[in-house]
Amino acid sequence: MSGARNGLAFLKQMIKFRTEAKSFENVLQGVRVVGGGDGKCTCEMTVMEEHQNAGGTLHGGVTATLVDAISTWALMTTPREVPGVSVDLSVSFMKPVRVGEDIVIDADTLKVGKTLAFCSVDIKLKSTGSLVAQGKHTKYVG
Amino acid sequence: MSGARNGLAFLKQMIKFRTEAKSFENVLQGVRVVGGGDGKCTCEMTVMEEHQNAGGTLHGGVTATLVDAISTWALMTTPREVPGVSVDLSVSFMKPVRVGEDIVIDADTLKVGKTLAFCSVDIKLKSTGSLVAQGKHTKYVG
Amino acid sequence: MSGARNGLAFLKQMIKFRTEAKSFENVLQGVRVVGGGDGKCTCEMTVMEEHQNAGGTLHGGVTATLVDAISTWALMTTPREVPGVSVDLSVSFMKPVRVGEDIVIDADTLKVGKTLAFCSVDIKLKSTGSLVAQGKHTKYVG
Amino acid sequence: MSGARNGLAFLKQMIKFRTEAKSFENVLQGVRVVGGGDGKCTCEMTVMEEHQNAGGTLHGGVTATLVDAISTWALMTTPREVPGVSVDLSVSFMKPVRVGEDIVIDADTLKVGKTLAFCSVDIKLKSTGSLVAQGKHTKYVG
Repeated sequence: MSGARNGLAFLKQMIKFRTEAKSFENVLQGVRVVGGGDGKCTCEMTVMEEHQNAGGTLHGGVTATLVDAISTWALMTTPREVPGVSVDLSVSFMKPVRVGEDIVIDADTLKVGKTLAFCSVDIKLKSTGSLVAQGKHTKYVG
Repeated sequence: MSGARNGLAFLKQMIKFRTEAKSFENVLQGVRVVGGGDGKCTCEMTVMEEHQNAGGTLHGGVTATLVDAISTWALMTTPREVPGVSVDLSVSFMKPVRVGEDIVIDADTLKVGKTLAFCSVDIKLKSTGSLVAQGKHTKYVG
Repeated sequence: MSGARNGLAFLKQMIKFRTEAKSFENVLQGVRVVGGGDGKCTCEMTVMEEHQNAGGTLHGGVTATLVDAISTWALMTTPREVPGVSVDLSVSFMKPVRVGEDIVIDADTLKVGKTLAFCSVDIKLKSTGSLVAQGKHTKYVG
Repeated sequence: MSGARNGLAFLKQMIKFRTEAKSFENVLQGVRVVGGGDGKCTCEMTVMEEHQNAGGTLHGGVTATLVDAISTWALMTTPREVPGVSVDLSVSFMKPVRVGEDIVIDADTLKVGKTLAFCSVDIKLKSTGSLVAQGKHTKYVG
């Protein structure tokens, strides 16, 4: 169904637009969307030097930005079709990721109510599938 | 006491080094440190187009990166002098900030134990002093 | 101004009502309100055996309940005068508290908007003033 | 394998001991363990008047206590066999639960490292399976 706002084609186009426009999502230009729609969005990213902290591993600010942005992209594929406004965001960091490693980011919309939406995000190493971070994102969508 | 690791001169030099080295903290090059030491760090930043989201206000990923980085800088001025490794980070977003506005970021180390440190961060509009976001950051320092 | 909904007399009466009515706030009957109004509420509590965990220190569930309830009581003294509905709650635990120790719980309303309110709560040892836990509570007040 | 510390028989005995001993987990005496082991623990509870808030629905303090305790019980069935000490706990509240409704609480240990463990907890309505709350719990296990 061409033009559907809840499929992978829509996600690819929307993410290309958002990461190329002059905005903070420029830092996510290396993100590749690989699946999603109906409230979900799955992406992959190779950790590069521009994503690293002083210890040579994935910076927590990148992890938090991935949680924020990719859960928003997932939310835009729900029937409400809105990005919403952030209310609360949290991230637990379970494992460092080194430059050169590939990660998979899985965002899921848990609930969209009249005024609030709740999303969760799992970030895993692509090579082993082990969880490296988990995030939650509450958004105002009223 | 010139060279002290807990004063403003140390913070300025360290932050210059960290934001100019090839890393994610490049996105914080516009941050100006204005005070700190002894577990605290206060910075200012003018919100620019490269910090914005698709709605033209400060991107939540920038807010989270400010919480992560500036609390880490504050932590480096405690007697432990270590940046630590992120365990949990959370941000509450209370008010959007428009491009062109100045914000003040105040990070404070609440506790440094043998293995864990706890920091909190207040982000306010410089013009009015009203709170725009509040963050917490738990780090492993063992 | 007797009867004002934003003062200590109102808080005392309201808290007595809420902790004596058949509800979960019965577990807070040992809480003594010592100050508050205008969005704030300060209470004290002696940690008893019924508050302990299997390790003989304050149970995290009590800490979280104190954060939830006392921030709600603080919120009820703002001009909106509503308890709201919980959206997100988080607690960082910095120090164990032993049975017999007195704690001071300080709740503050950071912002009340049209639909959301944000509160923070500091819990300290009464004897030393050292922080034992810090909580945040986001509520829907629309 | 009778006596194994990672199975349902162990969970039942341990939870009976913990909720009957003089401690805050007395408030969880209505909790029924229905599955678990190997880092997981699934329980059910009927929401009673003693669990309610002033609005007649499940009190957020109960929800947080369920997240805290049941994730700890799950953690005790990992090879480390320790309850740990709470570091950070967060809860997102998605839907109110009325007195008389049954809920299912599913706790899972996401990672146990040398010093830190990370757990997540889903709370659902038993009747419909819809998510009512989601929690995270980071514990020190070093």
